[in-house]
Amino acid sequence: MSNAHEAVEAYWTAIDGRNWGTLTDLLAENVVYEAPETRERVRGRAAFIRYNTEAFPGEDWHIFVERIIGAGRHTASWVQFSEVSLQPGLSFFDLNQSGQIERITDFWPIAYDPPAYRAQLVERY
Amino acid sequence: MSNAHEAVEAYWTAIDGRNWGTLTDLLAENVVYEAPETRERVRGRAAFIRYNTEAFPGEDWHIFVERIIGAGRHTASWVQFSEVSLQPGLSFFDLNQSGQIERITDFWPIAYDPPAYRAQLVERY
Repeated sequence: MSNAHEAVEAYWTAIDGRNWGTLTDLLAENVVYEAPETRERVRGRAAFIRYNTEAFPGEDWHIFVERIIGAGRHTASWVQFSEVSLQPGLSFFDLNQSGQIERITDFWPIAYDPPAYRAQLVERY
Repeated sequence: MSNAHEAVEAYWTAIDGRNWGTLTDLLAENVVYEAPETRERVRGRAAFIRYNTEAFPGEDWHIFVERIIGAGRHTASWVQFSEVSLQPGLSFFDLNQSGQIERITDFWPIAYDPPAYRAQLVERY
């Protein structure tokens, strides 16, 4: 298990536990967070902690890790955000030389209907 | 670079190059492909090759790899599907003991508007 794996495991544990001090320690001060689907960006550790605490209040949600894969300074994770229903989250992390997370790219894909042209090639589940 | 990394690098090179023989060699005969957003599933190598060749015909699209991260028997990738515009694809792969890909979970997230409640916490790009 690499440091890149362990850092992201600790990241999701901190978020799920609302341990903002621990989360702060895992992040580089100049961390940049991006969500390409909505083209939202948050720059800097203080702003990212504020984003987490203010955008997602309440105690009713949890994070369940499906997969964490780390190698070198890069990690990917697949988690489920559980509140009313399960929402998958796919994230890519880059670590700096000190092992802190300095770049996060998050995808939170929403369900959509498949195109009809390939209906004969797949099953639905 | 792990075998899990190399298998997925070869997978995307084969798909981008329409090298279906190479793609076949990379896949376990019992490979299962799932796309959670649309709840589509394809079972088995022959059906998956058919899905690739028939659902995505034409020569106008390409795959650009943003990131491949492999460790042990697991790999994640972030690619861009380029046709008219760029469409990100996030994929998680499991390899069997022989190093063949036996499970693929693909997400092709579509853009959406961010919720207004967090507008003051982010910038847009």
